[in-house]
Amino acid sequence: MSVRIALDLMGGDQAPAAVISGAARALAADPELELLLVGPQPVLATIGEEPRLRLVPSGPGVPEGGRPASFLRQHGDASMNRTVALVAEGEADGAVSVGHTGALMIAARWRLGMLPGVLRPAPAAVFPLGSQPVLLDIGANVEVSAEDFLVFAALGGAFCRIVKGVSQPSVALLANGTEPGKGTRVLKEAHQLLAQRWPSFVGYVEPLELFTGAADVILTDGFVGNIVLKTMEGMARVLAGLPGVVDTTLAPLLARMSDITASGSPILFLGTRGVVVPGHGRAGAADVARLVGLATAAVRQGLLAAIEAELKQYGIA
Amino acid sequence: MSVRIALDLMGGDQAPAAVISGAARALAADPELELLLVGPQPVLATIGEEPRLRLVPSGPGVPEGGRPASFLRQHGDASMNRTVALVAEGEADGAVSVGHTGALMIAARWRLGMLPGVLRPAPAAVFPLGSQPVLLDIGANVEVSAEDFLVFAALGGAFCRIVKGVSQPSVALLANGTEPGKGTRVLKEAHQLLAQRWPSFVGYVEPLELFTGAADVILTDGFVGNIVLKTMEGMARVLAGLPGVVDTTLAPLLARMSDITASGSPILFLGTRGVVVPGHGRAGAADVARLVGLATAAVRQGLLAAIEAELKQYGIA
Repeated sequence: MSVRIALDLMGGDQAPAAVISGAARALAADPELELLLVGPQPVLATIGEEPRLRLVPSGPGVPEGGRPASFLRQHGDASMNRTVALVAEGEADGAVSVGHTGALMIAARWRLGMLPGVLRPAPAAVFPLGSQPVLLDIGANVEVSAEDFLVFAALGGAFCRIVKGVSQPSVALLANGTEPGKGTRVLKEAHQLLAQRWPSFVGYVEPLELFTGAADVILTDGFVGNIVLKTMEGMARVLAGLPGVVDTTLAPLLARMSDITASGSPILFLGTRGVVVPGHGRAGAADVARLVGLATAAVRQGLLAAIEAELKQYGIA
Repeated sequence: MSVRIALDLMGGDQAPAAVISGAARALAADPELELLLVGPQPVLATIGEEPRLRLVPSGPGVPEGGRPASFLRQHGDASMNRTVALVAEGEADGAVSVGHTGALMIAARWRLGMLPGVLRPAPAAVFPLGSQPVLLDIGANVEVSAEDFLVFAALGGAFCRIVKGVSQPSVALLANGTEPGKGTRVLKEAHQLLAQRWPSFVGYVEPLELFTGAADVILTDGFVGNIVLKTMEGMARVLAGLPGVVDTTLAPLLARMSDITASGSPILFLGTRGVVVPGHGRAGAADVARLVGLATAAVRQGLLAAIEAELKQYGIA
């Protein structure tokens, strides 16, 4: 199936060179891929013509630091805005940017809008150790309601089916214990709601179960999800730096775990009306090609339709 | 300085044998220590007379499982209740139990009461990797207000001075980023409050700073603190089980990190009117002796007076 992916040339520390090389790799790897490279005219002028490559002129990239939301509002033609807008306009099937992650989420929300029943995008990741469950929200929705967890279940379930091929993914709530009295007030409400409405809900799991396969999808709010990932990353970094670890079998694993967004673990914003794949600012050409591959797979496997069906099935949309 | 510590004989998986052996070790290690061993008469009858050893009859230990709060309420003479009550009655300077941790916190709260200005006990630990900051709350206060963080700062600061000898410990809030917009609603309020009231407040830190020494004391609510510790424990267990790790220099460190309460890291309930030291149910004799040593040090170094002074100084009590 032919897929068109829009790629932001101006995102990331090595932009545009790494993105341009990554685009070439992605095209070579997938004969049914078409890429739309989005960037200012002077950058586009450096890129040779290729079959299956379309150049789309835009304004500037989102600068590091500053206030990305204001920047995106003031620069409707910013490369990130244009990249996502191509999906909204039906010109592309998915978008990839290794620019500022928070900015990309804002652009996705503004340019694409949300699926029916979903208030805000939820970033989800495949947890990169042990049984590798889908974990969401990993950083965006800091204040959540019990109903948000029902939406997270639908989003995470669809994502898990797509990236892991699990047909009826089990869903759990991350908590500080598995006894009924555990959890915050919101989690207790969410537990009740999911127990009533979600057939594959398995209850609370503790962080140990992030590693042991107790659930395919583990739900948490964006504050706790972010803390969990950063605790793992920080611990991996400290362990990797200890004497005697460099030459062990652990070193490559710890290097991957020390930076989830650079690790190759699939990360997606879920809930927007289109496939948007973020990436790490330090992404090199191989990373960019991999992210394009993830976006392509999500499109080919019908992630959006799966989420919409899930939301409808459980009476959310 | 002579110190009297009450020791619950009926706590832990190896009770009473491990506790009795631990008591003997603790007495041998500290010539100015007096121990009060608390247990039912038949257990006390097995213990030989020793100088600096006093036997205190009590009811049963708190059973595993069931509802410890109801048990403690129904059995005022339960060994855990009696152990803590000896502190309240002025018979002992501190209490140690390796029984059910939640039950011990309840007993401490009921039998000792709280220091002025403190609503609930806050368990604190020395984070067992990297720069080893004091982390609290690690599991009790799941719903907190901004004012609770001011209390946590006083409690954690005093604990840090005692166990780590830092004279003016820096205090930080654990958050999902260091920018002002980060944090939950409560954390944002707490940030404002601490910035106004706490001279050594350094702002938000991310989980990476648990390892890097950005702050001596790191504050979080009991839900997030518990999740952070259990994420670390879970990751340590998974890493320790990977092929090729067993014989490396990492193995002993991972074993310690895989169980914080069994790791030897000091843990105290802070805010009660007396020194109460919990321990792991799997504690052996050496662990029990170490916990008695921690209680003794906290008494000798005037932990309670330090906390009271801190609470007064910052206008909490």
